[in-house]
Amino acid sequence: MRVILCGFGAVGQGLARLFESRADDLHARFGLKPRIVGVADSGGAVHDASGLRAGSLVAAKARGGSVASCGGRAGMAGSELVADADADVLVETTSSNYADAEPGMSHITAAMARGMHVISANKGPLALAFPSLMELAAHNGVSLRFSGTVGGGTPILDYAKNSLRGERIVSFRGILNGTTNYILSAMAGGMSPEGALADARSRGYVEADESLDLDGIDAAAKLVILANWVMGMKVTLPDVERTGIRGVGADDVRRAAGAGSAIKLIAECDGGLSVGPSDVRTDDPLCVNGTLNGISFVSEHSGTQTVIGRGAGGTETASSIVRDLLDIRRDMASR
Amino acid sequence: MRVILCGFGAVGQGLARLFESRADDLHARFGLKPRIVGVADSGGAVHDASGLRAGSLVAAKARGGSVASCGGRAGMAGSELVADADADVLVETTSSNYADAEPGMSHITAAMARGMHVISANKGPLALAFPSLMELAAHNGVSLRFSGTVGGGTPILDYAKNSLRGERIVSFRGILNGTTNYILSAMAGGMSPEGALADARSRGYVEADESLDLDGIDAAAKLVILANWVMGMKVTLPDVERTGIRGVGADDVRRAAGAGSAIKLIAECDGGLSVGPSDVRTDDPLCVNGTLNGISFVSEHSGTQTVIGRGAGGTETASSIVRDLLDIRRDMASR
Repeated sequence: MRVILCGFGAVGQGLARLFESRADDLHARFGLKPRIVGVADSGGAVHDASGLRAGSLVAAKARGGSVASCGGRAGMAGSELVADADADVLVETTSSNYADAEPGMSHITAAMARGMHVISANKGPLALAFPSLMELAAHNGVSLRFSGTVGGGTPILDYAKNSLRGERIVSFRGILNGTTNYILSAMAGGMSPEGALADARSRGYVEADESLDLDGIDAAAKLVILANWVMGMKVTLPDVERTGIRGVGADDVRRAAGAGSAIKLIAECDGGLSVGPSDVRTDDPLCVNGTLNGISFVSEHSGTQTVIGRGAGGTETASSIVRDLLDIRRDMASR
Repeated sequence: MRVILCGFGAVGQGLARLFESRADDLHARFGLKPRIVGVADSGGAVHDASGLRAGSLVAAKARGGSVASCGGRAGMAGSELVADADADVLVETTSSNYADAEPGMSHITAAMARGMHVISANKGPLALAFPSLMELAAHNGVSLRFSGTVGGGTPILDYAKNSLRGERIVSFRGILNGTTNYILSAMAGGMSPEGALADARSRGYVEADESLDLDGIDAAAKLVILANWVMGMKVTLPDVERTGIRGVGADDVRRAAGAGSAIKLIAECDGGLSVGPSDVRTDDPLCVNGTLNGISFVSEHSGTQTVIGRGAGGTETASSIVRDLLDIRRDMASR
C-alpha cells in the first residue's frame, strides 16, 4: 500500500518509525505492507516510488532540516507532491488551522480528486468542512478516515460508531483537550492559574497558538468531528457555543471543590453543541485529571459508558493511523 | 431470524420486550426481524413456529408461573425445546453454574450440533469450557457470541477485540463484579463489612449463591472469558488464582484510604490470571465506585485505556444480545 505523508512532525515521524518497527508484525498479522512513497514538510518534499526509509527521513528532521534533503526538492509544496506522486493513501498530518484549514484542505481535496483514500490527523479541514468532505469522498469513491483526531490512540470514534452499533447514542460529553485538563487539574491541586499555565508551557503541553487550547478551539473541533461522525449531525466549528478557561479563577476552583466537584472544560452534544467550563462531580467516572481525556456516552438502552485514555502523543496517534489503514484496506477489498 | 430463548429471567424478558418495542427501529435501521419461536424456563417450555408474543410470555412470569402456561408444556426441558424447534439462533440465559455449567452447556452443545448459532449470556459454560466451545462452534460452522457476559451493556469485549484491532493488548485489569464494588465502596464510605453486605442484599445486588460475588467467582469467570477472547489464551476457571473480599476488614479500608487508595476486587491478566483485593489509587481512572464496572487495557502503542459502565441490568444485557444478533446476521450474510 503506497502512502504519501503531508506533514512530518511527531505524528508523521512516529508513523514512519511504526511502519519500520512493526513491518513484520503488520505483514504477518494483517497482510499490510505500507510503503512511504512521498513525504512533504514545510521545507520541501521528497518522492520515490520505490519507497523511502524512515531512518533517513527522521535523521533529516533531527538535523533541523527538511525531508527534502533526502534526495528531494527544497521548496516543493505538499500539493505538488500530491499532484505528482502515485499513491493509494494520503496521510495528512500538517498543523490544524481553523481559519481556512490550509494547507491540509488542499492536500485532501487534491488527493481525493486523484482517487486516493485519505487519513487525516489534521482537525482543521474536518472542523471547518466535515459534511462537504464526506460528500467529496463519496463522490470520488474513496474513504476518509480520521481516528487520530479525537482521543489520540484511544479509539473513541470507533467505540461510539462500531462497538455501540445497534444502539442509539442520545447525548455525550467529554474532556477532549488534555492541556486545559492539565491546567485545571493543577489549579485544583492549589496552583494559581498563571502558575498552572506556566507549568503546562514548560512541559510542552501548550500549542504554539495558545488560543487553540485556552479558548477551547481544539476541544470544539473534536466536538464537531464527533457530532458529525457519531450523531450524524451536519455541523461545523461556528455551530459550537464556545467558552475557554481564561475566565476560571482560583475562587471558582475552590468553590467547586467545596461542592464535591471539579471544574473541567466540557465539550457537550445534547441537542446543541457547546464547549465551556463546567462542574463535574469528583465521583463521576468522567472526572479524570492530568492530561487524560475522557468521554461519556449516554445510550438509549445500555446506560452511560465512559472511555478514558491519553488524548495525544505521536506514537499513539500514529497507531490510530495504522488502524485507519487496516480499515481502508478492508474497504478496498470489499469493493 | 428465528430465536429460541433458554432461560426467561430479567435478561430473557428484557430481550423479548426489546424485540417488540424496537421492532420498527431494528427492521428499518438494520433489516433485523427477530421472531421468538420457543422459550424455556425452569417450569416448562412453549414452542410456536409462527412466533410468540412478548406480552403474554412476560405476563405469565408476572403471575409467578412458567412460560409453559402460554400454550406450552409444563415440565418440558430446554434441551427438548432445542431438539424439537427449528431456529437460527439459541439465546442461552439460564443461571451461571460453575460446577458443571448445566443446563446451559447441554443447551449450547445441542443447538450447535443442530447448526444453530448461539448467544450466551450465561457465563458458566464459557468459564468452564471456552476453548472447547469455540472449537465446537468452528466444527459446526456456527457463531458463538457472548457480549453480555462481561460488562452487561458496555461492549468491553468488542472494544478490546475490534476498536483496538491492529494494536496489541499487553495486559489488563478490571473491576468486573458490581456487587463487590458496591460493598467495598460502602465500606470506604464508613460502613462496616456486615452493614455493607446487608445493604447490598437489601438492594437485590447479591446473587442467591453469595459465594459467586463474595468469593470472586463471578469476576474470575469474566476474567476467563476476556483472557480467551482478547488475549487468545486457552484457559478455564481453575487457571485463575482467586481470593474474594470476605477477608477485607474496616482496618484494611482505612489503611488504603490513608495511602490515597481504595481497595477494589481486581481481576488481572498480566502473564497469569488472578482475582483478589488490591489497592487502586483514587486518581486512577479505574477507581470507580458503587456498582460500576471498569477495565483498563494496557496496549503496546496506544497507552492505557479505560472503559467504564454499568456491568449488569436486564435491559443492558438484552441490548448486548441485540448487537450479537446483528453480528451473527452479518456473519451469515458473508458466508
